[in-house]
Amino acid sequence: MAAKSSLDPIISLAKRRGFVFQAGEIYGGSRSAWDYGPLGVELKENIKKQWWQNFVRGRDDMVGLDSSVILPTPTWVASGHVETFTDPLVESLHTHKRYRADHLIEAYTAKHGHPPENGLADIKDPDTGQPGNWTEPQLFSGLMKTFLGPVDNEEGLHYLRPETAQGIFTNFNNVVTTSRKKPPFGIGQMGKAFRNEITPGNFIFRTREFEQMEIEFFTAPADADEWFKHWVEACWNWFVDLGINPENMRRFDVPEEDRAHYSAGTIDVEYKFGFQGSEWGELMGIANRTDFDLNNHSKASGTELSYFNQATNERYTPYVIEPSFGLTRSMMAFLIDAYTEDEAPNTKGGVDKRTVLKLDPRLAPVKAAVLPLSRNEDLSPKAKGLAAELRGLWNIEFDDAGAIGRRYRRQDEIGTPFCITVDFDTLEDQAVTIRERDSMSQERVSLDKVRSYLGEHLAGA
Amino acid sequence: MAAKSSLDPIISLAKRRGFVFQAGEIYGGSRSAWDYGPLGVELKENIKKQWWQNFVRGRDDMVGLDSSVILPTPTWVASGHVETFTDPLVESLHTHKRYRADHLIEAYTAKHGHPPENGLADIKDPDTGQPGNWTEPQLFSGLMKTFLGPVDNEEGLHYLRPETAQGIFTNFNNVVTTSRKKPPFGIGQMGKAFRNEITPGNFIFRTREFEQMEIEFFTAPADADEWFKHWVEACWNWFVDLGINPENMRRFDVPEEDRAHYSAGTIDVEYKFGFQGSEWGELMGIANRTDFDLNNHSKASGTELSYFNQATNERYTPYVIEPSFGLTRSMMAFLIDAYTEDEAPNTKGGVDKRTVLKLDPRLAPVKAAVLPLSRNEDLSPKAKGLAAELRGLWNIEFDDAGAIGRRYRRQDEIGTPFCITVDFDTLEDQAVTIRERDSMSQERVSLDKVRSYLGEHLAGA
Repeated sequence: MAAKSSLDPIISLAKRRGFVFQAGEIYGGSRSAWDYGPLGVELKENIKKQWWQNFVRGRDDMVGLDSSVILPTPTWVASGHVETFTDPLVESLHTHKRYRADHLIEAYTAKHGHPPENGLADIKDPDTGQPGNWTEPQLFSGLMKTFLGPVDNEEGLHYLRPETAQGIFTNFNNVVTTSRKKPPFGIGQMGKAFRNEITPGNFIFRTREFEQMEIEFFTAPADADEWFKHWVEACWNWFVDLGINPENMRRFDVPEEDRAHYSAGTIDVEYKFGFQGSEWGELMGIANRTDFDLNNHSKASGTELSYFNQATNERYTPYVIEPSFGLTRSMMAFLIDAYTEDEAPNTKGGVDKRTVLKLDPRLAPVKAAVLPLSRNEDLSPKAKGLAAELRGLWNIEFDDAGAIGRRYRRQDEIGTPFCITVDFDTLEDQAVTIRERDSMSQERVSLDKVRSYLGEHLAGA
Repeated sequence: MAAKSSLDPIISLAKRRGFVFQAGEIYGGSRSAWDYGPLGVELKENIKKQWWQNFVRGRDDMVGLDSSVILPTPTWVASGHVETFTDPLVESLHTHKRYRADHLIEAYTAKHGHPPENGLADIKDPDTGQPGNWTEPQLFSGLMKTFLGPVDNEEGLHYLRPETAQGIFTNFNNVVTTSRKKPPFGIGQMGKAFRNEITPGNFIFRTREFEQMEIEFFTAPADADEWFKHWVEACWNWFVDLGINPENMRRFDVPEEDRAHYSAGTIDVEYKFGFQGSEWGELMGIANRTDFDLNNHSKASGTELSYFNQATNERYTPYVIEPSFGLTRSMMAFLIDAYTEDEAPNTKGGVDKRTVLKLDPRLAPVKAAVLPLSRNEDLSPKAKGLAAELRGLWNIEFDDAGAIGRRYRRQDEIGTPFCITVDFDTLEDQAVTIRERDSMSQERVSLDKVRSYLGEHLAGA
């Protein structure tokens, strides 16, 4: 009965109900970034909370960190980003617009079923349709620049971080000293990163400003393979535990020629986003970064980033296993996977179509809605009082506008697990009706038990 | 007996114990930003959680938002930042270094007890000590630039937001439509902002990359003064409720000539940070921004940002009351206010000095430490099992290194409210000793009650 839908209705719902707005919409908007509305920011915060609890606070072999977006420039030289974080761009001599050469070729291949026989010469200008007239590809940096201090010169040139990882590596000694952790242990971090993507797109999937949740896990080199496997499982299970249907995920063992410059092995976890052209997209990846980063920063800074094992009397540079999550990609996958169209009984004895976000209650932006059956001088204060009490613990909505069935539909559509109806019987029996989102089953619960009822059903939220 | 200390020991503790690290320390460091270590990120997250719960989720007249750092450039033209967010800079003709003219004059005045009689001509070059030889002051933008897209030109020029507020104003219609809120109501947002400060300093007080927690509260113009007062009280009370001694705070009614260009009235809440030269610093401010921002964005974008009151059949542009908090400044104030040196009994019947962070348990980075009395094959697994169980709910440390008194001192110093000791009696009576940080009182609690004991004493954490 329940049917999964394509991407469009989800994007439409996300905009209509205040999950995601186009950034700077009143000024014509931007594809570089998106703004997260009242429901979007709650969903995003809930994902972060679950991630932090599961991977950082909840594990005795992990600690957290929050390093800055703007780090000293030598960081990005040592990491290899200044030299290798580049894309090949060509310029159309008709319009002087620039494009990624590999994207032009991909688009041609997708359309024609084979790559262009004569390379770029076969590819028309995407704007004008004129026969292709392209410059030679030039390498273009994906790093976003800014300038610090009173003058815009080389001295002031800095980069916005393209990944949170490097701030973890440069703090390796600081964390080891202050937290007294020893390998195997990891450092987790959530935060913004910036990449000058030439072609942002696919809603919140690829943007220039985005959020990552990254772990750098430090281990003896001999144990790296074992920990790599551990993290692939742990990441996969995190999504499944939070409600993603495993049939919509797959693992992709990235071949050597497609891996990032630092990686000795990468498994991407892909999700069936349902994009036009290619259904699957990267949700997150686990990479074996070896000792590449710690070694490079040691050489470049002159500070030895390594670990002295007192038990074996040996100093070694740990290998790094990196699970790297895209936060907004994860949010998109949770939305798509939760989006369901099914049927609900109506007051006439028939059924109506309903849209319901079957989000895990831990992720749902609103945990419960308090609904007085009608606007009434007895019911409304009672309902408002209950909402105020619950608001001390959870994100709660109060809604007294329109027919009760319509209010249920509004809450179903944003994934609210529980609707609490205050009706005329409440004034007599001091109880309310609690309706569960997915089953639509209803239960009468005494007013003084609502808090513990929700506490039990929203455990971990 | 308890004595408040000056700033230095707090900065030293923050570095030594992993609250705050210098950003990019291995590359010589940066004054532009700081990195937050394992304890710092927990403290910062706890402050954010309390702020969000108190001001956003916990109020029925507030919703949240998370808008992007990089917004379309017209946003910053309409807000007035491109034109007026500037500082007067002078260049020394000896060294060609630039300085803020007002800061040079302030420093001279602080040193000599009077302002320079002949203006800048009296001020020596701070680097070389040569007699002053300065250019005329020139206005310098505090906005940080970046470039989006394939070329670094005017078309690609964007700014990093210097405040989170503008992303709220530009989404005013989106939020009203999707959340169905009406004035008086507000929108809260937490996030990074960037300002090209010429002289960052005073530890995490003034940095180029920083975090804000801002509320834009929309009200009918006639009610603006009343809401202004409401928010001054609400902000003040938030700090006091979380443990700041009100004697270390004061209100400063900012005179018109010192207010930001948009403000019709500003009250700063200042905290006694204890900086050299001037003890007090701005912790947060409440401003009456009037209809300045919504009007300017309406004019610039052609989109009417206003509210139609169906009850009175009138359309009006709401006034905005803005409580704006510095997150890292708040963290610094909480640390300073919690820092205490007192005495603790030692095993020889005397007393030792101890350092204790008397942080509110809701803010404390570690909620409880589980300490086996000694490293032992019976005690250690028992203690580790308890730590693992509690870790599902709170941030918990396990520490089995060194004498128990020394371990208490380590936890006191980072503000851990409860130390749970697993001793040899535990193997018999299935109970543990729970020690409270401030009173150092100890209580025997049965193992199966530890969770509910902490739940009660850590309410709201």
